Amino acid sequence: MSSAEPIAAIAREPGARFREEIREQPDALLRLLETESEFARVGAEMRERGATTIRMVGHGSSDNAASYGVYAFGLLPGWTALRDSISLSVYYGAELDMSGCTALALSQSGRTPDVVEYARRAKSRGAYVVAITNDGSSELAEVADAVLELRAGPELAVAATKTYTNQLAALGLLAAHTTDDGEAFAEGLRAAAAAMPQLILSVESRIANVALPFAYAGRMFVVGRGAEFATAREIALKLLETCRIAAEPLTATDLAHGPIAAIDSLFPVWAIASDDATLPAVVEAVERAREAGATVVASGNAAESIPGADYVLPSPPTASPLLAPLLSILPGQLFAGALARARGLDPDTPRGLSKVTLAR
Amino acid sequence: MSSAEPIAAIAREPGARFREEIREQPDALLRLLETESEFARVGAEMRERGATTIRMVGHGSSDNAASYGVYAFGLLPGWTALRDSISLSVYYGAELDMSGCTALALSQSGRTPDVVEYARRAKSRGAYVVAITNDGSSELAEVADAVLELRAGPELAVAATKTYTNQLAALGLLAAHTTDDGEAFAEGLRAAAAAMPQLILSVESRIANVALPFAYAGRMFVVGRGAEFATAREIALKLLETCRIAAEPLTATDLAHGPIAAIDSLFPVWAIASDDATLPAVVEAVERAREAGATVVASGNAAESIPGADYVLPSPPTASPLLAPLLSILPGQLFAGALARARGLDPDTPRGLSKVTLAR
Repeated sequence: MSSAEPIAAIAREPGARFREEIREQPDALLRLLETESEFARVGAEMRERGATTIRMVGHGSSDNAASYGVYAFGLLPGWTALRDSISLSVYYGAELDMSGCTALALSQSGRTPDVVEYARRAKSRGAYVVAITNDGSSELAEVADAVLELRAGPELAVAATKTYTNQLAALGLLAAHTTDDGEAFAEGLRAAAAAMPQLILSVESRIANVALPFAYAGRMFVVGRGAEFATAREIALKLLETCRIAAEPLTATDLAHGPIAAIDSLFPVWAIASDDATLPAVVEAVERAREAGATVVASGNAAESIPGADYVLPSPPTASPLLAPLLSILPGQLFAGALARARGLDPDTPRGLSKVTLAR
Repeated sequence: MSSAEPIAAIAREPGARFREEIREQPDALLRLLETESEFARVGAEMRERGATTIRMVGHGSSDNAASYGVYAFGLLPGWTALRDSISLSVYYGAELDMSGCTALALSQSGRTPDVVEYARRAKSRGAYVVAITNDGSSELAEVADAVLELRAGPELAVAATKTYTNQLAALGLLAAHTTDDGEAFAEGLRAAAAAMPQLILSVESRIANVALPFAYAGRMFVVGRGAEFATAREIALKLLETCRIAAEPLTATDLAHGPIAAIDSLFPVWAIASDDATLPAVVEAVERAREAGATVVASGNAAESIPGADYVLPSPPTASPLLAPLLSILPGQLFAGALARARGLDPDTPRGLSKVTLAR
């Protein structure tokens, strides 16, 4: 008996942090909403400055959240938002005129080196720079003209969950507060937070059985379109980092432009179906995947509209397509956690990753 | 003996079209350059109109070429270029103000339905719409304000090769002709065309041996950054559609933000290294991948700067980083063709794909 035994005895169960942080999401979202006035202030500032081209940067989950920002700013104020190239400014030193732009720098830690450097350069090129970060005293926050804190609380599992959903909420709330829709959007976020606990409970009760048949899967496509493309990207990233599945996110139409050729019965497809104008494209893509022999997991608030899905993980309806991704990500997070456990992996500490990524 | 025998006897070898079209790329590029004055005219028009925000749309290889366009327009005129969301305009009907924008609609066939519909809507929202297509009499060409023809000649293999390189050339040449660099860039393209035949010959002579060890690979990461991110995306797509490998493109930094956790000795990494400011990030990413046990293929004009690569497929140096992707794609195309043959697949006719994709 070594003296390490007592420590082992109280060691956490693999994936315990990841699961706890998934469950904390409704509370984290409500904490963010306590600072709604900050979003109103920054949104008004963007409008007053005419900083209406939105350049978003971030890596990993932050970049996935930026995919959502394209739709939030496109649909609410009708502004052009893009996931900007960090390389172009930071490595190549491109001389872009960023007056008339807001740069939204997304980093949980506020320490991602090239995001901090991008923020610095964007400021010097005339952009209004807003840091969206979980650490209001980080280097990124110091560089920025304004800071919007995620208020997700400490995130200890390496794979992001509550900071991702709060990034979605922050982008949506900010976009809404550049218009008169701010309060209505905040109301929608409160409704989403209220729906989360029941959704988590109901998915948790059955997710181990859904995950088990994928215990030996090596690859997967995750299909979404429109506002749910961010969800497809984030689910694929969770599967990569916690389950070591080569999961690739695709828009419904991109699937038909090449990747469909790779599908066979060993290549499952996860589809996020939302009850909006993108639904027919997603239904059509899944039909092609099924014809090619794929096992299909359907999620999203229109999961039940996917014909012949093998597994259905629906999320509740929302008042607008922009609120749906706050809920539709949850079954994906829970599936990744359950599948990691089925594969004998610890989703809290994926091999080769650390919480703060300082890589170039 | 059936009457079909004589036909079988003259049937093409699997992958013959794909290989021929790879070899046609220098000629196709020179044909495009014969119409340089068209690029000068459209470039001048963009400048005169002040249509300096560049919205690019396309699927598959066309979308990969658009990744290159971000750098071409960012580095040459210093304009903001983005891969626009088709869903936002076509499905959600977002009310974006596109005055001050050029919309570049990329489609080999000119018939991709949602690209045509996007072009129509972009025009009605005030954009100057330019079709970049292999078919100057297509529906897309009719909708657009101006047409730049790819002049790649008929592309019969389903997987795009020469239309992709001509899309890169078209985007670079157009970007250069919005500045005074048009002629110099055309000269660089001529030099690239001149370097292609020798590169193709030299890679062809050894590619079967490089491909063979990957005969049973199920997945791969393809890493590039900056202007070579387009190459990473296009190589990954070739591997997906011709070899059924779950190949995922990543920027060098994104690899460290999650996907690195999935790498083991069964998960090879292809890295495109370019002799420019992005090189240190790519070198660092490959070092992490090697530590995780990955087999590494290095390509690009700085392939030899990747320490410890298992296979090295260098391309010749170019006058600027924006010319490198015209050459660095070739080893990827040839590898995909050789690997498809090693796997008993026909890269000319991938299962489930047709040349003109009419999917939503």
